[in-house]
Amino acid sequence: MKPIPDKTIERLSIYRRNLMAALNNGTEYLFSHQLAALMHTTPVQVRRDIMLIGYAGTMRKGYHVGNLVERIGNIIDSHDGKNVAVVGVGNLGKAIISHFNGKRSKLSIIAAFDNDPEKYGHLFAGIRTYPVSQINEVVKQQKISIGIIAVPEESAEEVAERLVNAGVAGILNYTSRPLSVPAHVYLEEYDMLTSIEKVAYHAKSLV
Amino acid sequence: MKPIPDKTIERLSIYRRNLMAALNNGTEYLFSHQLAALMHTTPVQVRRDIMLIGYAGTMRKGYHVGNLVERIGNIIDSHDGKNVAVVGVGNLGKAIISHFNGKRSKLSIIAAFDNDPEKYGHLFAGIRTYPVSQINEVVKQQKISIGIIAVPEESAEEVAERLVNAGVAGILNYTSRPLSVPAHVYLEEYDMLTSIEKVAYHAKSLV
Repeated sequence: MKPIPDKTIERLSIYRRNLMAALNNGTEYLFSHQLAALMHTTPVQVRRDIMLIGYAGTMRKGYHVGNLVERIGNIIDSHDGKNVAVVGVGNLGKAIISHFNGKRSKLSIIAAFDNDPEKYGHLFAGIRTYPVSQINEVVKQQKISIGIIAVPEESAEEVAERLVNAGVAGILNYTSRPLSVPAHVYLEEYDMLTSIEKVAYHAKSLV
Repeated sequence: MKPIPDKTIERLSIYRRNLMAALNNGTEYLFSHQLAALMHTTPVQVRRDIMLIGYAGTMRKGYHVGNLVERIGNIIDSHDGKNVAVVGVGNLGKAIISHFNGKRSKLSIIAAFDNDPEKYGHLFAGIRTYPVSQINEVVKQQKISIGIIAVPEESAEEVAERLVNAGVAGILNYTSRPLSVPAHVYLEEYDMLTSIEKVAYHAKSLV
């Protein structure tokens, strides 16, 4: 199968989120126009994306929600699972760990790092915190392939460098500091301000 | 001026973030290819976006960083400022308040809501927390136009309804629960899992 475009992966993840919510409400089947309404997109977009992953609904009933969730999982999840570490156990790091835990069986947060000695060795939601200086050994020992950066922005670069040197394949940067990493590491950056500014812009044009 | 597409607003916000980081490092001018490299995008895209907001650099020196930051602010910021409220003062709510405070003069978080009586009347980073049942009156009294939802997902719908009824113009939903709101309210949804799944997908194809 051909690699799937970045934006499609993002939408597939959001489809799954909506489909799982529908499943929890007891919905068995959904038509593309219903899924499109949930996703704030068009039925054409939905059909195109789902065709791309080789799944088809029926004319009469639409997509089988459970099967489609599974199919999307087969595409976007790693088969053997991935280990994730969070660097920074402040409010944001804790929010990430709580939000994440138990929601995706194929992805697990298995370690956290922080520079605060009060946090070393303690568990938060079952996750142990190590000193930042131990990133290299812990990432290698525990086969961690994804690092999430949730530290104060002035430490973002140092942490990214440590993660890259330890051999992670992907980094998710939640600080306001834009990072650059070698081409073999996948970098995703999210700054909350961007979402808030987007809402503010649109809220402005409404009033 | 014509309304600017959604994706462009998002990129303008990210340009500003990168430009401000460059400014802090003492950079006065940037060429489109340098800005593109910071943004992980193409020079063509950068030039197109910046042309759209009616700004031009010079051939010899490129864009003036300070002026471009100001120009983007004129486009995406509201002139008279906007008041923002955060609903949910758990780890995520606290992370949002800390991340946000003081970074954008035109947008201010001025109130928080939570159902935990231990939090009522207390200040977190200078922000006062009210009971969720007071959303309607506080939003109206304090002219809050944007609500950020950072509650446990089972409360997301109730909170969104309260915010809509109180008259906010925009909602940013950080829970995993997809919401729907009336068309006159702008809704942006961000689920951390989507970013992590995107990184995991790409990290997978690298290994």
